[in-house]
Amino acid sequence: MRKNYVMTPGPVPISNEVLIEHGKPLMHHRSPEFSKIFAELTEKLKKFMQTENDVFVLTASGTGAMEAAVTNTFCTGDKVLVASVGNFGERFKKMSKTFGLEVIALDYEWGKPVNPEDIKKALDQDPDIKGVMIQHSETSTGVLNDIEAVGKIVKDYPAVLIVDAISGIGASELKVDEWNLDIVCGGSQKAISAPSGAAFISVSAKAWQMIEKSDIPRFYFCLLAAKKSADKNPPQTPWTPGISIIVAMNKALDMFFEEGREKVYERHRVNALAVQSACEKLGLEMLVTDPESRGVSVTSIKVPENIDGKLLTKTMRVKYGVTIAGGQGKLTGLIFRIGHLGYVGIFDVITALSALEFALKEQGWKFELGISVTEAQKVFFENNYME
Amino acid sequence: MRKNYVMTPGPVPISNEVLIEHGKPLMHHRSPEFSKIFAELTEKLKKFMQTENDVFVLTASGTGAMEAAVTNTFCTGDKVLVASVGNFGERFKKMSKTFGLEVIALDYEWGKPVNPEDIKKALDQDPDIKGVMIQHSETSTGVLNDIEAVGKIVKDYPAVLIVDAISGIGASELKVDEWNLDIVCGGSQKAISAPSGAAFISVSAKAWQMIEKSDIPRFYFCLLAAKKSADKNPPQTPWTPGISIIVAMNKALDMFFEEGREKVYERHRVNALAVQSACEKLGLEMLVTDPESRGVSVTSIKVPENIDGKLLTKTMRVKYGVTIAGGQGKLTGLIFRIGHLGYVGIFDVITALSALEFALKEQGWKFELGISVTEAQKVFFENNYME
Repeated sequence: MRKNYVMTPGPVPISNEVLIEHGKPLMHHRSPEFSKIFAELTEKLKKFMQTENDVFVLTASGTGAMEAAVTNTFCTGDKVLVASVGNFGERFKKMSKTFGLEVIALDYEWGKPVNPEDIKKALDQDPDIKGVMIQHSETSTGVLNDIEAVGKIVKDYPAVLIVDAISGIGASELKVDEWNLDIVCGGSQKAISAPSGAAFISVSAKAWQMIEKSDIPRFYFCLLAAKKSADKNPPQTPWTPGISIIVAMNKALDMFFEEGREKVYERHRVNALAVQSACEKLGLEMLVTDPESRGVSVTSIKVPENIDGKLLTKTMRVKYGVTIAGGQGKLTGLIFRIGHLGYVGIFDVITALSALEFALKEQGWKFELGISVTEAQKVFFENNYME
Repeated sequence: MRKNYVMTPGPVPISNEVLIEHGKPLMHHRSPEFSKIFAELTEKLKKFMQTENDVFVLTASGTGAMEAAVTNTFCTGDKVLVASVGNFGERFKKMSKTFGLEVIALDYEWGKPVNPEDIKKALDQDPDIKGVMIQHSETSTGVLNDIEAVGKIVKDYPAVLIVDAISGIGASELKVDEWNLDIVCGGSQKAISAPSGAAFISVSAKAWQMIEKSDIPRFYFCLLAAKKSADKNPPQTPWTPGISIIVAMNKALDMFFEEGREKVYERHRVNALAVQSACEKLGLEMLVTDPESRGVSVTSIKVPENIDGKLLTKTMRVKYGVTIAGGQGKLTGLIFRIGHLGYVGIFDVITALSALEFALKEQGWKFELGISVTEAQKVFFENNYME
């Protein structure tokens, strides 16, 4: 008997309620029954994203939504500013170059957040910049960027603001309309806690103006085609969608609203705090040194000297059934990442920390067994977690 | 109590065995457990496609695989020959134009197949043609093209042959290697009978040579990225895949091989024959007049005068729980389509025909109740169906 726990920044644990919906016999995607669910999901996603902008569901992973943002918005040769704080910032850069955009890179040390003032400076220096791309939560480091501040800046320029909120939205605050975010990307397998395979994207009026002029070829991810189908009565998708994923997302969002946005955010905040305090008790160092810059979706922890990081994650997974993530890109081998995103409760956190203690102990790391679990319990107790 | 039957050319019915796999808790896509399944699936897809070419799974619907074929293979301005016998041929044309290709259209009346000799003539006339695109089973009409003959022709030219086999492969013969098919596209929700949300694509050595030179921008659907990830040990996908769909496909292909390719083809042949003979007994006309050109995935039936086609499909769905499909593109309102694709047994066919009789009777169509069901029974009995 071995139970499995997924503690990564996506895919995340899925509730039985959502798994059951996802596992039901499929309906046809042109049936009125499906159209009803699809229309409901679209409305729920708008509420989830706090927007009255158009929102579309794409049958693709989050990278597909990022590609839709890039290929629908710009013209070949357009100048874009990409603020990069990690692996997914690099992906925006690579993707933009692929589609013929001129990239102005605003690079930060991995583990540090974007300084919004740098974006203002860049926009002032170059009025030709047509778009700004940034991550909300950078999944590869766990940094949370101050998207509200960036939104306040970019709204006064002709550039559109494109936000990859894939691992952040639904875990910590992101107000699409109030913060003036033109295009925001999300994924099914993150805070929503549905199976992987679908992405979603919101589009502002300012973005639509650019989309209408955009000349980069696109077909599968064409947002004008998505809009044309969504505007039908009943609403449709242009191509066959991932039916079971959409049905699962629809149920998962009900659970999000039942729990309540503020409670979900607080749960993520306290889970993250518990992991971070607990790991510090073990003498481990956080990649993101400034606690103010740490997101609540995933915690990146430096692999200490004399510890084999790859063996650590393997021991946790193989011996204890707890899957955490390693580092990505240039942080491969240097950090491990504990996800506390989506359908994760306090005892999942305690389980992960307990397994981490065992795996560290097996490699001879010095600490008092139970110390991190006790610290997490204290954090939960003091924060009136289950109130 | 109302039971539902999906009798469309995709999504198709899904077995309980596959639904159960699909509904299980998800594993992480970078775990060895998933990599094992992903590697298994890739091998099974090669066997399914009868190829030793590379095969990739894309998290997208079939249209995504068609786009991957177009954007990875050609250079902007390349001339391509698109043989179009229906709505999906039109999609290849539209897509090719979108990505800057020069399209030579070889159009046929909807309901007729491609004449392979016309492809030979076109290739002889224009040695600059870099690719030929064609449907195997054209889902919008039910026509089956003679891909073997086309493969024999195109192999002697520099052009690559791209086959949309989405609704055909696995229902009727398609030998990727023996027939010299360079790029072949398929979907999870067709003959494989898994949930919608994944596509697959095979790539020949001849196609790889063009892919390496291709200059059309692509990122999410980049086959070189897919190959780089698939070549890792253990094999990976470049982006987060639709995990539950892949697990379901893996199980569904086991069931395909357990039943046996020849038996699956024979089942489809007899189911199609039963539907076609039965409908003719009802005095209905087939869209595809030549029985030799009819595919085995879907049957298109002309809506007779004095019958409201939209009401017919609605009655079948709402009153009897049997979902069939209407016409697409320029055949909208003029035909209805009964799918007999994938996990469809003889009693599903009898159910669909029985519901069709009820719905026709309600609109005053003259025939003896039971005549089509009896005809289907005869076809099944004479063909030793359950042998």
